[in-house]
Amino acid sequence: MTIEYVDAGEAIDHGALSAVSGTAPAVTDNIDYDRILNARSESHNWITYYGDYDGKRFSLLDQINTENVKRLGPAWIFQAGTSGQIAGASTYAFETCPLVVDGVMYVTGWDGWFWALDAKTGEQLWRYKHAVPFDVSLCCGNVNRGCAVANGKVYFVTPNAHLLALDATTGKKVWEKTIGDVRAGESASLAPLVVKDTLITGSAGGEFGVRGHIDCWDLETGEQRWRCYTVPKPGEPGSETWGDAEANAWARGGANHWVTGTYDPDTNLYYAGTGNPAPDFDGEVRPGDNLYTDSVVAVNVDTGKIVWHYQFTPHDLWDYDSTMEMTLFERDGKKLLGHFDKNGYFFVLDRTNGELQHVTPFVDRIDWGTITRDGKVTPRKYPDKEGEPVHFYPGPAGAKEWTHAAYNPNRDLFYVPVADVGATATRRRREFKEGQPYWGAAVQVDIDNMAGSVSAFDSHGVEKWRWRNPHPMASSVLATAGDLVFAGTPAGEFIALNAQTGEELWKFQCGSGHHGSPMTYSVDGKQYVAVPVGWGGWLEGIIPGMLGAGHGSALIVFALPD
Amino acid sequence: MTIEYVDAGEAIDHGALSAVSGTAPAVTDNIDYDRILNARSESHNWITYYGDYDGKRFSLLDQINTENVKRLGPAWIFQAGTSGQIAGASTYAFETCPLVVDGVMYVTGWDGWFWALDAKTGEQLWRYKHAVPFDVSLCCGNVNRGCAVANGKVYFVTPNAHLLALDATTGKKVWEKTIGDVRAGESASLAPLVVKDTLITGSAGGEFGVRGHIDCWDLETGEQRWRCYTVPKPGEPGSETWGDAEANAWARGGANHWVTGTYDPDTNLYYAGTGNPAPDFDGEVRPGDNLYTDSVVAVNVDTGKIVWHYQFTPHDLWDYDSTMEMTLFERDGKKLLGHFDKNGYFFVLDRTNGELQHVTPFVDRIDWGTITRDGKVTPRKYPDKEGEPVHFYPGPAGAKEWTHAAYNPNRDLFYVPVADVGATATRRRREFKEGQPYWGAAVQVDIDNMAGSVSAFDSHGVEKWRWRNPHPMASSVLATAGDLVFAGTPAGEFIALNAQTGEELWKFQCGSGHHGSPMTYSVDGKQYVAVPVGWGGWLEGIIPGMLGAGHGSALIVFALPD
Repeated sequence: MTIEYVDAGEAIDHGALSAVSGTAPAVTDNIDYDRILNARSESHNWITYYGDYDGKRFSLLDQINTENVKRLGPAWIFQAGTSGQIAGASTYAFETCPLVVDGVMYVTGWDGWFWALDAKTGEQLWRYKHAVPFDVSLCCGNVNRGCAVANGKVYFVTPNAHLLALDATTGKKVWEKTIGDVRAGESASLAPLVVKDTLITGSAGGEFGVRGHIDCWDLETGEQRWRCYTVPKPGEPGSETWGDAEANAWARGGANHWVTGTYDPDTNLYYAGTGNPAPDFDGEVRPGDNLYTDSVVAVNVDTGKIVWHYQFTPHDLWDYDSTMEMTLFERDGKKLLGHFDKNGYFFVLDRTNGELQHVTPFVDRIDWGTITRDGKVTPRKYPDKEGEPVHFYPGPAGAKEWTHAAYNPNRDLFYVPVADVGATATRRRREFKEGQPYWGAAVQVDIDNMAGSVSAFDSHGVEKWRWRNPHPMASSVLATAGDLVFAGTPAGEFIALNAQTGEELWKFQCGSGHHGSPMTYSVDGKQYVAVPVGWGGWLEGIIPGMLGAGHGSALIVFALPD
Repeated sequence: MTIEYVDAGEAIDHGALSAVSGTAPAVTDNIDYDRILNARSESHNWITYYGDYDGKRFSLLDQINTENVKRLGPAWIFQAGTSGQIAGASTYAFETCPLVVDGVMYVTGWDGWFWALDAKTGEQLWRYKHAVPFDVSLCCGNVNRGCAVANGKVYFVTPNAHLLALDATTGKKVWEKTIGDVRAGESASLAPLVVKDTLITGSAGGEFGVRGHIDCWDLETGEQRWRCYTVPKPGEPGSETWGDAEANAWARGGANHWVTGTYDPDTNLYYAGTGNPAPDFDGEVRPGDNLYTDSVVAVNVDTGKIVWHYQFTPHDLWDYDSTMEMTLFERDGKKLLGHFDKNGYFFVLDRTNGELQHVTPFVDRIDWGTITRDGKVTPRKYPDKEGEPVHFYPGPAGAKEWTHAAYNPNRDLFYVPVADVGATATRRRREFKEGQPYWGAAVQVDIDNMAGSVSAFDSHGVEKWRWRNPHPMASSVLATAGDLVFAGTPAGEFIALNAQTGEELWKFQCGSGHHGSPMTYSVDGKQYVAVPVGWGGWLEGIIPGMLGAGHGSALIVFALPD
């Protein structure tokens, strides 16, 4: 053989490749705010990140149900394995949640990849590759969690903190904007959210000592509407929680918003979770509560102003980001917000004003501190001395990772992917250098004595059942009106549980660990369940017992046999 | 988040990883020569590369058949995606053929990977990673085609031309030998073949101007028994076919054996296909027939001596390797050998003495030259002038790639993966430098006007049916007693055809192109069909119409629903 092959990683140029350039039907042309407001009512589609603004990850589809799920099997597979472009990029995880609109599936990957697929057959309709610079530090993992669709376009962010709009039928770029400064360590990984005629995004990079922000962009032109910093600058309310202003701790404070928020049209508020303070573990350089780290901030979508906030872990010394979903639900006519935090506690707030309703633990082992039902926080174990190892539960792998819970309103049950695992942190002082990692401890997550579960809690925090797993769970959960709960394990199994009892009804070995978000849709009356599967990236650190497990990059789509 | 993750590519150390180190049952302990001689009679297993010494790729299993194959679906998936270790390695293809012994599956990958899996569930029992040096040239692709099992061990070769024996129960290395000099461009990619108490291997590297050889090793100790060079040195018979001995063309002549041969215990001969001469296309530097390039050499397995040979393309100017399988079959009591060559012709020889029976074309377009039924070769179009482009059919992608045909003896039908595609070669003189590519033309394979098929031929060369595909076929074919023919397409579909009519009975989208060898087995009475799926590597050059198609690295195992 003899051919001097061309490196596909370089050759990718949209439109030039016969096998990979086609067109998709113009299904997103009339996706707009009104349709997204009623997204769940068109459950044959999945048109926004969580399936609906409320973050419930609950579908009305019930063709696949507790009776027939045992017959579920793969209908098609898409292998997203492509040449890595970013140095070291092969340790990604496949963290996305696909969207589906009228038979077309939109999927994002690591390294700036975007694919449009036929949702019925898996055929690739087009794909796009964003050229990510090689020579940048990327916090915190070369991953992407999903996209937005509207107005004939698809929107996604890239590891070098750009926001792109592509033509949804051809994959051609329409516009490109810069969210953050990649040279300073800013990155982006969340799915943008369409609200009214805008898009809302956030930035990543807390471990590099950047100041987090949430941004709003014109859906059509990409013009920036507002920016909301999640750390107040000196003089602003909350700035007193960062110690001496001249020490500049606030300017490198973290609080990054790297997971999509939820939205309530009635309150006109975007509920954004924020990440840990920087540097993590080392609280001495940032005396105070460090607002608005580890918080939910409720942002007026028209003005970008923070209307209220609630901080789950004041003065965080354990790396307890609160970026994960803020689920919007109702109880007794009250508009509530539920949040399962890395710190091991489940919080329920009044989402109109941020008033705490109650706090309850959702994991067996918590010894970093206690939070009482009324919200009083008492730290107990933390790395307070340089060079002295301190062990605590939960470790920074969280009692729950960023991966999402689901909520079935018919049963008033939250289904939570739980990680019950501790860690040892040994504090070490870091000098801040722009664009360099800025973390305050060496951390060893426990290798033994770990557990995981999908646990069902009612909205009062009472546990109703627990499906146990030997490893911490690290995939999002999906709930459906078929009375099913789907989730994936680090060992590769995709499982279906009975929503009422937690009984395991079905499983399938997908060949790599799960760290993404399954979703469901239907085409021509047939229901499908799609799950991205691929272990890798920083997961290898947070579940060391799985270190060295095979990576993957397959999207597997299941259906009942005809 | 904060963990400084450990690169799995470096951390892999057998035995240290709780998730990936286990043990496999000792199923290979009593695999020996006698069992392999009768391999087809235990068709629930697949204990040698082709399923049997004869290279037929035909299984007696018939639980999956023409009636029920439409219900076939994935039973489990293994994702072999791992951090690439060799620079540029991410453009591999997944070219292996798994072996199965009593419920345990043995799978090789690129980059020196080896996995033992539970054949029923896909659970990883152990895995092994050979450390391949970063700084070497690898001819011709970072790929591996399979392994051998016997005697409580598994055997495989590595991209840097080593031969390894691992303990089959633990994956621990037992011994390691050097096949070739990787600094000179020697590599290895074939599955070793167990014969008697030895292993037979070959070397790759023809495009780097190495001298091909076949080696024989003691099964237990790895001690070398013999070496058979496939290019004679000055003074040996055949050396007159290399021009002036002092020009040293013979010493860099190629003729590499990079695909497993077949074996007949009655003749005591190993039938080895050899690769193209080096430099390819540029015949002026190697006047003569260039024995034993593009040939079958029949090697006495006890002595390593070539007993007879037959050259399919004398003085090759088109890159027509003949490494692909030599299928052993019988007709009218005669012991025959069938071979579909890259040059577009199907050869049938008497395998006791190499006497030609007949030659017939198996692809529509052939204009490089003609071969008459009695074997007379007349070249017509070839790159004979420096810098002058010449177009010819078939191109160096072959009328058939290395991927294997299957033969169903019940029907006397060969099922051939055909690539009907031309190319343009522009000759350019290269000076030989050890360890550097040594090829004599720039080549552009046609982008348009290509076709492919699985074609059925009887042993007389008469075409009985043709299943057409828009792209050239580049996967091996599997035939079963269920009267089925399985193959995969470059576009990702795995298909099942009716062995008698060629009718397409079933297909499944696997999400990446096929360039490996499907096989079948059964566990606890249930039949499975396994196929490695993953496009990449030099395929991107040989099917430019697919350039940029997604890579993959999944092993997908199909079964009927319970």
